[in-house]
Amino acid sequence: MVSVKEALELILLQSRSFGTEEIFLKDSFGRVLAEDILADRDYPPFNRSAMDGFALRSADLLKFDKLKIIETVYAGSIATKIIRKGECIKIMTGAPVPAGADVVLRKEDATETGEFMVPGIKELKPGANISSQGEDAKKNDLVISKSHMIDGGMMGTLAALGKKQINVFGLPQVGMISTGDEIRQVGEAVLSYQIRDSNSYSLEGFFQLYGIRFKNKNIVSDRKEDLINSFRKIQDNDIIILTGGVSAGDADFVPDVLTELSVRKIFHKVKIKPGKPLWFGITRDNKIVFALPGNPFSVQTAFKIFIEPYLRACFGLKTLQFGRLPIIFDRKKKTSFDEFFPVTLKTNNSLCLDKVAFNGSGDITSTIASSGLGWHPAEQEELKEGDLINFISWKSFF
Amino acid sequence: MVSVKEALELILLQSRSFGTEEIFLKDSFGRVLAEDILADRDYPPFNRSAMDGFALRSADLLKFDKLKIIETVYAGSIATKIIRKGECIKIMTGAPVPAGADVVLRKEDATETGEFMVPGIKELKPGANISSQGEDAKKNDLVISKSHMIDGGMMGTLAALGKKQINVFGLPQVGMISTGDEIRQVGEAVLSYQIRDSNSYSLEGFFQLYGIRFKNKNIVSDRKEDLINSFRKIQDNDIIILTGGVSAGDADFVPDVLTELSVRKIFHKVKIKPGKPLWFGITRDNKIVFALPGNPFSVQTAFKIFIEPYLRACFGLKTLQFGRLPIIFDRKKKTSFDEFFPVTLKTNNSLCLDKVAFNGSGDITSTIASSGLGWHPAEQEELKEGDLINFISWKSFF
Repeated sequence: MVSVKEALELILLQSRSFGTEEIFLKDSFGRVLAEDILADRDYPPFNRSAMDGFALRSADLLKFDKLKIIETVYAGSIATKIIRKGECIKIMTGAPVPAGADVVLRKEDATETGEFMVPGIKELKPGANISSQGEDAKKNDLVISKSHMIDGGMMGTLAALGKKQINVFGLPQVGMISTGDEIRQVGEAVLSYQIRDSNSYSLEGFFQLYGIRFKNKNIVSDRKEDLINSFRKIQDNDIIILTGGVSAGDADFVPDVLTELSVRKIFHKVKIKPGKPLWFGITRDNKIVFALPGNPFSVQTAFKIFIEPYLRACFGLKTLQFGRLPIIFDRKKKTSFDEFFPVTLKTNNSLCLDKVAFNGSGDITSTIASSGLGWHPAEQEELKEGDLINFISWKSFF
Repeated sequence: MVSVKEALELILLQSRSFGTEEIFLKDSFGRVLAEDILADRDYPPFNRSAMDGFALRSADLLKFDKLKIIETVYAGSIATKIIRKGECIKIMTGAPVPAGADVVLRKEDATETGEFMVPGIKELKPGANISSQGEDAKKNDLVISKSHMIDGGMMGTLAALGKKQINVFGLPQVGMISTGDEIRQVGEAVLSYQIRDSNSYSLEGFFQLYGIRFKNKNIVSDRKEDLINSFRKIQDNDIIILTGGVSAGDADFVPDVLTELSVRKIFHKVKIKPGKPLWFGITRDNKIVFALPGNPFSVQTAFKIFIEPYLRACFGLKTLQFGRLPIIFDRKKKTSFDEFFPVTLKTNNSLCLDKVAFNGSGDITSTIASSGLGWHPAEQEELKEGDLINFISWKSFF
């Protein structure tokens, strides 16, 4: 039995790229950049007026009571004249500051009288109300390094930099099998002792945070031959996920079947609650197999603690940071393992973690009531109100 | 000029539903539930064994040295026999606990010898290792109330509850116009004093967090007739967004044009930095118009502070909670307004906010370096290291 840390290390050793592809920026939301993005020119590309007002020589403010307005310049055009002593050019926000000027006087601080402008203030620091060329980024600066996930803000930056098409990491193909005689399809009638397949929905939902839909989703009974046949049909996927039948009960035939299918076991069982029976291996074609226990909360925990880090490593994304936050409850540990449990973010004075109702990993409602997982470390028997613990969000936001 | 709070109230007064639609659960990621979800039966639907082991009468543990194994029950089936004194039934995780039994003894705590089982422990609390019928939810309990956004965990719960199809809120149609003579399409060549349209990309990216793509995206020069024509073409959208030309400069013709188009002004200008020139109104057909200033950071701030709350209100989603977190820098305010500035989440001892390089709202790189916005309140001139401030994430995660 390996520790959480050891399991994660063994999993990450298997990370690989799923290739790259060129896509349109407009379709890039949620994808991961596969190229470094450099500035194609300085940003701002010119000395840009940050205000509506008058471009002038700062030294003239003390020397002249009024300045001659020699031109007006709008965003999207350039002045045709150079500003000399005693002159100014009327300028709009976003327009390039004309040659000769070193400040922009805000229109609120000026009075326009025919062809002259009377400054309302006598001193401005050179550069005032001007965004200097290159202050945001210089030409060829690295603006975004590869392996960042693309969100709204980044789409804006990529657009500003002229990246109509971008290179992103390819998505893995994922296949999944839910095992268990008790499992029925969501739309089917259920007998009292049967339950519906929920794990393939929650897992696919989690994968969708990375833009991934499942290629295959199957339900298989607790019969070896069925699992063998079903597995063969989906063994071409880059990532294969099984749920259920992975413990050590009489019906837990999954590890045996995987061995029979020549899937090489990398580890079986982790010192974690919930999710101890996790089985991890690799097929002869180097496809990755995660066999998870069948309880909904165990599956979702396994995704956050093991599968998501794997996926992120494949994209070169940095590991999600655990938020370290105080708890407002006490907690005793039941095992000697690392324990994960549902918690919810709350703002009392500052941000903190509260517990939610939880009967165990068979619960179907606990993830709805919670913001994410709290981590009760193996070596700490009790957590006390006010203790700082690691928090990982269902929404993967750090 | 209205305050941030007043502006937000006026905006939220205009919130409306965009209808509802029935979709398949498998396609529901990121959509918002438009129905209350009740439990169709108890959860768990039966007394479920939480372990592999033996179902038995707890009182028998003290009375008998060994118990007769009368049957084996797997998940997905039910026992055909009732457990009487001195008897037990071998049971797998997930199987229904047979009538007569009130505990499950874990297999680790038992020895199997032919047709008998010898318990390794003499006492178990009634209910041990059993997930009781209905402990997670009772039939007809409200499990998820409407107006929740569907994520992976919720997809799992909806699947468990048998909701193959669900009713979700319809998405608004959104049209956008970027105004400005200086604006070029992302793929076009740019002259030194021109910039590329980035706002339509960042805004569409933010809307995509809610599953919304823009129906129209146009770039319009600073000529009245062009804006009038362009606006008429997209005025059927539920939400219309304009950027640029909304201040009070000579080229800021947007408010006039909107008036000419009979769009009723609800407010113009807010005591906020950045984004003061915000214009908000409603067309004769009750379509919503946000006219934003043109700077990238102003646009993104306006989305988080005004447009996203509007969108959430339309879906009945609860307002995003501000995370209240300590800052690790000092900050002086430049205006008497509420000021928003980019910050990044950091874990020192516990979670805190750090500042990022920022030259002003024309920056194209600041949102990339930041996790979200810090709020410097109007009434507080200075923020000091250690002060708690409101934080709102680009990723909308609270």
